[in-house]
Amino acid sequence: MLVEHPFKRASLEYVGGKYSEVIISTPNGIVPIGRNHPIVVVAGPCSVESKTMIVETAQQVKASGAKFLRGGAYKPRTSPYAFQGYGESALELLSIAKEETGLGIITEVMDASDLDKIKEVADVIQVGARNMQNFSLLKKVGSQEKPILLKRGIAATINEWLMAAEYILAAGNPNVILCERGIRTFDTKYTRNTLDLSVIPVLRSLTHLPIMVDPSHGTGRADYVPSMAAAAVVAGTDSLMIEVHPNPAKALSDGIQSLTPVKFDNLMHKILIISQTVHRLV
Amino acid sequence: MLVEHPFKRASLEYVGGKYSEVIISTPNGIVPIGRNHPIVVVAGPCSVESKTMIVETAQQVKASGAKFLRGGAYKPRTSPYAFQGYGESALELLSIAKEETGLGIITEVMDASDLDKIKEVADVIQVGARNMQNFSLLKKVGSQEKPILLKRGIAATINEWLMAAEYILAAGNPNVILCERGIRTFDTKYTRNTLDLSVIPVLRSLTHLPIMVDPSHGTGRADYVPSMAAAAVVAGTDSLMIEVHPNPAKALSDGIQSLTPVKFDNLMHKILIISQTVHRLV
Amino acid sequence: MLVEHPFKRASLEYVGGKYSEVIISTPNGIVPIGRNHPIVVVAGPCSVESKTMIVETAQQVKASGAKFLRGGAYKPRTSPYAFQGYGESALELLSIAKEETGLGIITEVMDASDLDKIKEVADVIQVGARNMQNFSLLKKVGSQEKPILLKRGIAATINEWLMAAEYILAAGNPNVILCERGIRTFDTKYTRNTLDLSVIPVLRSLTHLPIMVDPSHGTGRADYVPSMAAAAVVAGTDSLMIEVHPNPAKALSDGIQSLTPVKFDNLMHKILIISQTVHRLV
Amino acid sequence: MLVEHPFKRASLEYVGGKYSEVIISTPNGIVPIGRNHPIVVVAGPCSVESKTMIVETAQQVKASGAKFLRGGAYKPRTSPYAFQGYGESALELLSIAKEETGLGIITEVMDASDLDKIKEVADVIQVGARNMQNFSLLKKVGSQEKPILLKRGIAATINEWLMAAEYILAAGNPNVILCERGIRTFDTKYTRNTLDLSVIPVLRSLTHLPIMVDPSHGTGRADYVPSMAAAAVVAGTDSLMIEVHPNPAKALSDGIQSLTPVKFDNLMHKILIISQTVHRLV
Repeated sequence: MLVEHPFKRASLEYVGGKYSEVIISTPNGIVPIGRNHPIVVVAGPCSVESKTMIVETAQQVKASGAKFLRGGAYKPRTSPYAFQGYGESALELLSIAKEETGLGIITEVMDASDLDKIKEVADVIQVGARNMQNFSLLKKVGSQEKPILLKRGIAATINEWLMAAEYILAAGNPNVILCERGIRTFDTKYTRNTLDLSVIPVLRSLTHLPIMVDPSHGTGRADYVPSMAAAAVVAGTDSLMIEVHPNPAKALSDGIQSLTPVKFDNLMHKILIISQTVHRLV
Repeated sequence: MLVEHPFKRASLEYVGGKYSEVIISTPNGIVPIGRNHPIVVVAGPCSVESKTMIVETAQQVKASGAKFLRGGAYKPRTSPYAFQGYGESALELLSIAKEETGLGIITEVMDASDLDKIKEVADVIQVGARNMQNFSLLKKVGSQEKPILLKRGIAATINEWLMAAEYILAAGNPNVILCERGIRTFDTKYTRNTLDLSVIPVLRSLTHLPIMVDPSHGTGRADYVPSMAAAAVVAGTDSLMIEVHPNPAKALSDGIQSLTPVKFDNLMHKILIISQTVHRLV
Repeated sequence: MLVEHPFKRASLEYVGGKYSEVIISTPNGIVPIGRNHPIVVVAGPCSVESKTMIVETAQQVKASGAKFLRGGAYKPRTSPYAFQGYGESALELLSIAKEETGLGIITEVMDASDLDKIKEVADVIQVGARNMQNFSLLKKVGSQEKPILLKRGIAATINEWLMAAEYILAAGNPNVILCERGIRTFDTKYTRNTLDLSVIPVLRSLTHLPIMVDPSHGTGRADYVPSMAAAAVVAGTDSLMIEVHPNPAKALSDGIQSLTPVKFDNLMHKILIISQTVHRLV
Repeated sequence: MLVEHPFKRASLEYVGGKYSEVIISTPNGIVPIGRNHPIVVVAGPCSVESKTMIVETAQQVKASGAKFLRGGAYKPRTSPYAFQGYGESALELLSIAKEETGLGIITEVMDASDLDKIKEVADVIQVGARNMQNFSLLKKVGSQEKPILLKRGIAATINEWLMAAEYILAAGNPNVILCERGIRTFDTKYTRNTLDLSVIPVLRSLTHLPIMVDPSHGTGRADYVPSMAAAAVVAGTDSLMIEVHPNPAKALSDGIQSLTPVKFDNLMHKILIISQTVHRLV
């Protein structure tokens, strides 16, 4: 599954040459993510809540064109008293959803001791924003072969983010996707974070690594997701991560930023039009 | 030139109803800016530097489709020893460029005592980011009839920005355009500011006032302007402000963020495609 | 009243030599503010509300050891519908309070056209945080002779702040006091701003200009003012600005950050002990 | 070593009652840290570099009055190519320094699998700013008995910080010290971070947990450490962490923010005067 990596000290010292791609095997076939490929959409709920919920969501997002299902088994929550995810049993439900739909699976690792279990089901392993500088974890996900989705820390500079990627690359794993998910600024009244879309052209000029944008965490409000998703596509992102929940009002976590499957389907039609007419235009 | 204003305490208490538009008379005809109109592009140099420079730039941006010429006569510079703009003589050059091209003129006021001179040539008067909470100036531009372009302060919350607009509206001038131009965050290595495109859907849900985005100040780097301009259009902005300079390397101010006329023309072709296929799509 | 100024391009290029002092004539005598003098305390309400209120407050803060009375006549308020200050009639009340107590007067200018009226009563003229980069105003206060209290903008870098001071110095007025009043960061739940006390040693290493700290705006909460005021003294500030209101719960503005006269008196006793034992110690 | 804990959901729901203390056994005797005790100083180098270096530094900081030696064995570094600490062999050197001086030892854990080794020498285990929301690690240090020094994340709100402490408390370990070490803001030209001393009164009003301030990381510059250390004492901190290196210019990490032993000794004399005259005064 590893793509041969043409760069030394890859994340930071890239100054030209080829863009790299992360090529992922899913039951439905090979999916490449990168500068020279069509946009790839990852969708699904913040947390895996039940078998019905995750399987039906998977079927719906697949029908709308998503290639990957996201779903949290281990959840990083600010409060220890908040829902922490269903852990191992959630991984089993993701496995069932994968079998039913053939979608690739992306889920987060919070503790290196869970890596083996997660690798059994996940096609891409997410390192979350809060762990972007958990260097022990970065070294460990770097010394195994599954592709890594590395979310930007909430106050991480672009240099720090690329250096976090470098930990993974330096440990031997060249398959890193960089995911912008909003940064912390002085204004949090209307948006949870400030989605920094300028990272798209900035990263393009600095690194060969593929780019993903998560407008769901980036804005924290379902109403703002479609316009920011569309903007990210036009600005040149290689992939999108969108939260979709069958019933956002009853979600165990992050319902306020989740699209319904119907709204997601609507967005996917628009993204299709946009990506056919203007993706890679600018 | 005033549009009848259907709202009370308009900027903040809008919860539905009609979007307002700012209708501007230019020698080339009426140009409306607002939710129900095609995108309008304002272009030109940071500072007015000479007659040849401003007239030729005006002709070029007009040929590419811009409706307004921007150009600074009075420049807010961090250092008192930096070029402060050519003032009154720059206003005269803007007047010549207007005559030659029929473009509308947008220029900044820094001191209320310059308002009368500026109004003779400007069709829209800009209040810059540093003066967004210069309440004396807001009251004065609110008590005259020219439309106002109100740039967001570098660390202004959306509420503070709308309240600044409210000062103008409350003083009797309903014609305010809100211009996002990047906010200050913790990372300034690659971009001068962080362009906050999420304000587009946020403002749409809060206010009827028209929206402009300035990706030139927003990113501070010419290379990043095209993708952010395109993203802003898809996200739904009503207008764009783009810095264009015939020779950015020799600009008296802000050359690093200015497009050449050729690059601007190229961008305008792409914006045309984007706005025809996907503007107002999301 | 002007002190001879030993520096060229004074604010920024200082790399040694003498610290400057601002020497202010008040009815009670000369008050110098600077590195080689005892700490000076400015106190009073956010806004001048009535004759009784301002005169009694002046008497109380004088009895506690304050050398200057602060009080707003022209108030920069986020909303145009909030109390805007009593303007000229507030200046008259400040004049009465000055006559009654002999305290020096500090009040803010928001509009250059008010300068002449303000100069009749004020011994120090304040340029507020929102106008720190109102360069027209800076040039005007720089071309008159009253000392200027220049508050740091809410997101101003130290360089920008010193450059704002430079506008005043370059216009001919060497008497500038730099006032830290809190910056805007990501956390505003418990404090209105983040008081940046590290500017004290930083400014000491960069500029000869005297330093003031305003823990009232800096924290936005009366409970936090005493510890931050004391910390500022130990860190080496030359002066303090403290909001005091006879009845904070009924203040027309900023009551939540105002000390009662009794609490202010208590704080002044502690500041006396601190400044006698440890001011200039570190 | 555990202090009986009088609070439920201790970190956040405290609204009165007793302050808690963390009582630490060191070879030199019991050292309590908390609101009702004298200030405690932790000192030492960023990284443990050699036996001579760490033992001599320990002897010097002990002679100056420090009760704990800090020293990094496992170092969280932005770049994977930077010095990562000497790991286990550094722990052995800390053990020797402890034996030679009787000082308590504070060192950082980055990976839960190192906990057992670290616990053999450390009297207090540090969780660093980058791991403040590494919830797996928080749960693990919460389920063992050594006291924890919890550094504030670089962009952590006070609520998030207290909730991180809550993870440790909820797992059964009541001995948490909260350490402010500077936050990330828009200005990093003169200071590495912005030391937020207002957390001292804020935390006092919210939580019973003891407070430490680290002006070395907080400012990033040795010159600014003394004034900020002194300010923290006057503002009421319970303890300080100060970086001391025998030869800062040759330090393997963070030399620029380290005091020499002589400068540290000088600072300790001043802190003694300050704490005797004005600590707990305000």
